[in-house]
Amino acid sequence: MKLYERYADEIADLIRNQVLLPGARLPSVRQARSQRKVSPSTVFEAYSLLEARGLIQCRPRSGYYVNAQSRVRTPEPATAPTVPQSTAVDISDLVFDVLGSTRNTELVPLGSAFPSAHLFPLDKLAKGLTPAMRQLAPERLTENLTMGDEQLRRQIALRYTVAGTRVDASELVITNGAMEALNLCLQAVTQPGDVVVVESPTFYAALQALERLQLRAVEVATHPRHGVDLQSLATVLEQHPVKACWLMPNFQNPLGSLMPVENKRSLVALLARHQVPLIEDDVYGELYFGLSRPSPAKAFDTQGLVLHCSSFSKSLAPGYRVGWVAAGRYAEQVQRLKLMTSLSSAIPSQLALASYLQTGGFDRHLRQMRLRLEENASMALRTIARYFPKGTRVTRPQGGYFLWGELPQTADALALHRAALAEGISVAPGHLFSADRRFSHHLRLNYGHHDATILAAALKVLGRACGVH
Amino acid sequence: MKLYERYADEIADLIRNQVLLPGARLPSVRQARSQRKVSPSTVFEAYSLLEARGLIQCRPRSGYYVNAQSRVRTPEPATAPTVPQSTAVDISDLVFDVLGSTRNTELVPLGSAFPSAHLFPLDKLAKGLTPAMRQLAPERLTENLTMGDEQLRRQIALRYTVAGTRVDASELVITNGAMEALNLCLQAVTQPGDVVVVESPTFYAALQALERLQLRAVEVATHPRHGVDLQSLATVLEQHPVKACWLMPNFQNPLGSLMPVENKRSLVALLARHQVPLIEDDVYGELYFGLSRPSPAKAFDTQGLVLHCSSFSKSLAPGYRVGWVAAGRYAEQVQRLKLMTSLSSAIPSQLALASYLQTGGFDRHLRQMRLRLEENASMALRTIARYFPKGTRVTRPQGGYFLWGELPQTADALALHRAALAEGISVAPGHLFSADRRFSHHLRLNYGHHDATILAAALKVLGRACGVH
Repeated sequence: MKLYERYADEIADLIRNQVLLPGARLPSVRQARSQRKVSPSTVFEAYSLLEARGLIQCRPRSGYYVNAQSRVRTPEPATAPTVPQSTAVDISDLVFDVLGSTRNTELVPLGSAFPSAHLFPLDKLAKGLTPAMRQLAPERLTENLTMGDEQLRRQIALRYTVAGTRVDASELVITNGAMEALNLCLQAVTQPGDVVVVESPTFYAALQALERLQLRAVEVATHPRHGVDLQSLATVLEQHPVKACWLMPNFQNPLGSLMPVENKRSLVALLARHQVPLIEDDVYGELYFGLSRPSPAKAFDTQGLVLHCSSFSKSLAPGYRVGWVAAGRYAEQVQRLKLMTSLSSAIPSQLALASYLQTGGFDRHLRQMRLRLEENASMALRTIARYFPKGTRVTRPQGGYFLWGELPQTADALALHRAALAEGISVAPGHLFSADRRFSHHLRLNYGHHDATILAAALKVLGRACGVH
Repeated sequence: MKLYERYADEIADLIRNQVLLPGARLPSVRQARSQRKVSPSTVFEAYSLLEARGLIQCRPRSGYYVNAQSRVRTPEPATAPTVPQSTAVDISDLVFDVLGSTRNTELVPLGSAFPSAHLFPLDKLAKGLTPAMRQLAPERLTENLTMGDEQLRRQIALRYTVAGTRVDASELVITNGAMEALNLCLQAVTQPGDVVVVESPTFYAALQALERLQLRAVEVATHPRHGVDLQSLATVLEQHPVKACWLMPNFQNPLGSLMPVENKRSLVALLARHQVPLIEDDVYGELYFGLSRPSPAKAFDTQGLVLHCSSFSKSLAPGYRVGWVAAGRYAEQVQRLKLMTSLSSAIPSQLALASYLQTGGFDRHLRQMRLRLEENASMALRTIARYFPKGTRVTRPQGGYFLWGELPQTADALALHRAALAEGISVAPGHLFSADRRFSHHLRLNYGHHDATILAAALKVLGRACGVH
């Protein structure tokens, strides 16, 4: 990372944490030079970057000021209470109904679970495929491949190390995306009928996995900014024979919440006391807006109780279907389940990613992608503030590419989903994100679009539709 | 296929079916020309090919004769009786133990489930990867991909049509190899505790899948040449609440048996009367030694009760992990399960195969591979006849790349497995192929090696070891 980029990130962080308030004047070039020992060009480049990100503006002959946008804040949604009883899950039909109707690629995909594929270095990845496969000895295609390519596992282990989390390559199993990883983990630690804790709201795919494996869900209160509520979780652990927790501490889907590092530490300690494994879904961890990658809960695990799942599908290579799990004490069991259900993952994808990770470029790509997502997020929040009906509440994500909107209570998210379709826009209605369909006037909105103009226009149309449905 | 190749195939078939007996003289060039209207060069080329395949030999100044080899026949194994009761399966630990010990790539892999990777057009496939991915519109990476790439599904549907079986592309779901297809099918048609029919012996991965899903197995008598015994199956269907059959009508693993076409028709009719779905594992169907691809049972299905599973892993592209299922009336259910367990299969693999299938070369490759496998099979049978102990029985496969050997009753396949390892050879002990471990003096031997000399030497060493263990 270049010096001016680091400097810009630091200022952005001060703005985000409201140390620098909207309207505040930034240090002049002279002040910055004397306080921070940075050159005038570094200051200029950093300020230009922040201006492009929509965080500050230049007032001619006066200086740079923190943008006022952050003042027009839509309130955040309330935390939904814990559902006290465990419930059998029956959500899949609804999910397939809704997803099926949004398959038209002509739609503006605010309902999609993926960021726009245009945000990824697809050409560079494609270039690596043929050379990587031609270098492989034929023997290696059919031998020892259940755990995944060794080079790829080493590269992944290295990224953990750099982020301050120790994971051994031998603990890693490469999977067909994080979805397979999460499913294998769930199977490794549960039997049909068992109780599993999820967040509220939670990603519908987690609910579908529970339904498929005939597991019961307990939905625990989750704060829109700080993630799962530990007090509530502690109570649930006392009251229910919980066999696993499936949580997303970093940029939860759909809330975008980020558990503070101390909460992660307490979470791991709490679960260790109950000897309950944590299935940690961390697919958005690399898409942070802050200064550095947030630690996974796995970082605090000393007992091998955390099964940390992630993938490259949302950060680098959609469609390559390369995910993984660092499964702690369950690694061998997950590996066996992998062998029994799909044998091994596709080698061309694995080798192309291993080669891309080796030659570098991933961090540069991520940096660009994060900036784009953060710009989109602030633009989306401004648009919502302006065009959505009074009484709308919305999250303020610190990473990822989802907003979670709470509309006035009279709104019906399913009606809105149909109305939006008629306008050429997909949304993810809140009904999908809870076993009891409690989020009936909520929407998950994907701002990971490659064209901010299209995104803004769609949000404007949607906001007006929200006023009438 | 060229004329001389077709002519050679016809003669090979006559030899295989003992219309032309060992020692019989083949028509002279003049006779062939007058009887069959083929040119002398066609006859010469056909006979050379048959000579290379070890089926005939030239006696100078006399003519071409059917090889005597087929006379030294080791007897075939007996059909094991049906296990009358259904049993819970508990085989996985043993399977993992045995497979784990054979992971050394230095071993001659007679115990492997895969043919040698050197038998495949790996370089040509690799070359297709980068261009195929660069032609893809980014949108297509994240949209509509659960069922799999449309071009690939069309190419697969086309191959069914050419082989005389009608399958619509919309019925196909692309999976991570046949293993995932089979697992999804099993989940689609069963609940924990249900009874499923398998062959005896049966592929251990089927037993593992049953174990994982807490299903009960009924193992039905299976003839080493003609496949599952329909009389026994009919009785089992009367006596047990069977929820599915998992069978391999073409070149069963491990027997290599091929159900006669009339048996397939009767099988489908029998199951239709009971409304029991058939999960048809047809991964070896393209590796036939006869004149044409044997029909799958699916060809006779008029009710959508047959879920036909196959893959390219054994016929074209190991490690690409591209399989599929034509799931009949269960297609939507399988598609949903696929979406919930692994979302979709890797795109680079799918596109590379679609492009390879489009530009042709698959049938040429298959033809070469079949010849090689058939040569290996007859060489392996000769070697076994010569070096294995008296009392050995062995199958005479008509396709695929497995032999199933029954050793004298005093032999212990697990001891033999360990003894073979010490000699640098892996084998698959018979214990793995039944829930009740009844095949304790049996071995599955993989003859799909790329080097006939190594294969012969390993069989010789193994035969001697069989004499002492």
